[in-house]
Amino acid sequence: MTPYPFSVMTLIRHLSALPGIGEKTAERLAMHLVRTPARDAEALARSILHLKETIRLCQRCFGLSDADECAICANPVRDATVLCVVAQVAEMVAIERSAAFTGRYHVLQGVLSPADGIGPAELRIHELMQRIASEPVREVILATGSHLEGETTALYLTERLGPTGVCVTRIAEGVPVGGDLKYVDQLTLRKALEYRHECGRRTS
Amino acid sequence: MTPYPFSVMTLIRHLSALPGIGEKTAERLAMHLVRTPARDAEALARSILHLKETIRLCQRCFGLSDADECAICANPVRDATVLCVVAQVAEMVAIERSAAFTGRYHVLQGVLSPADGIGPAELRIHELMQRIASEPVREVILATGSHLEGETTALYLTERLGPTGVCVTRIAEGVPVGGDLKYVDQLTLRKALEYRHECGRRTS
Repeated sequence: MTPYPFSVMTLIRHLSALPGIGEKTAERLAMHLVRTPARDAEALARSILHLKETIRLCQRCFGLSDADECAICANPVRDATVLCVVAQVAEMVAIERSAAFTGRYHVLQGVLSPADGIGPAELRIHELMQRIASEPVREVILATGSHLEGETTALYLTERLGPTGVCVTRIAEGVPVGGDLKYVDQLTLRKALEYRHECGRRTS
Repeated sequence: MTPYPFSVMTLIRHLSALPGIGEKTAERLAMHLVRTPARDAEALARSILHLKETIRLCQRCFGLSDADECAICANPVRDATVLCVVAQVAEMVAIERSAAFTGRYHVLQGVLSPADGIGPAELRIHELMQRIASEPVREVILATGSHLEGETTALYLTERLGPTGVCVTRIAEGVPVGGDLKYVDQLTLRKALEYRHECGRRTS
């Protein structure tokens, strides 16, 4: 015998299946949806259904899209000569939020990880090579992450891209802006020192 | 320009409207639903739609129900002679979870609060009196809460129920089981001392 009607229990069960939503939170959310106007609750339900109906991978960059080509690839203002290669959509979103990049993306849909059986064929590397052959790409920025698999993927891509003649770059590693040096790990500090840049010269 | 397709942004907006779900959590949940099998995401959406279609107030106790009469009121095993009066469904759920009560409930749908314009007519008190007149109720347990409005409501009901001849009781106030006395507030301690009960007697 449960303390809630069946319809509430079913909703609690489905909400609990979401990441980071425990039984208590699911219960609180379900009770909120009980009280909420039907219009608002239905809008939430329909936005889930609509998402699953429309969302797909962009056929060019393999980012998320509501159409065959995503809004960034379809935007003629975005610089088609610079391609930023990322592992996942989340990294593309983070770079977009920085508003520091006006080129286009290529989402590999993962990183090389031999231990997990993920080799070059499992990633969208073939499609990347095709884009470089058919699009006016002059620079490829590698932003696959600074963990081991990200580094491996970047090294592999640098080699693969060598013969194409495009300029291959990597985003800088260093201390985070506003970060306290005390709390920065040794590897990051080493990189930050290695890639130091001149910021002025004594004039006398 | 948002970093997500429209369908994802719409879902993030609706998820952010839920209590305790911030922008970041909504984003994480939306991306989970992007990756999740369509079957599971749709089950969640449909459980929200089904809830809003079926959930209503029980026409007897005014608890939540999928039918005109809730599972507790419809259960012939539940003791119809004892009625536990609570303010809201949440309190009924808490008591059900304790598995310490085998009678039936009456949910007032609120507590008396003159400051908020909530008088006896705004609560399900008329319906409570009707039930006592028509059902074999012998005892009414008041569990409207020990805050000011709960106390006021309990006092009001005690007076209203007096002439009916039913036995009116209140759930006990005291120190929580497993609670540390140091952290129990003064009012609770005073009540705990006032309602102390004998647990043994020196035999010599």
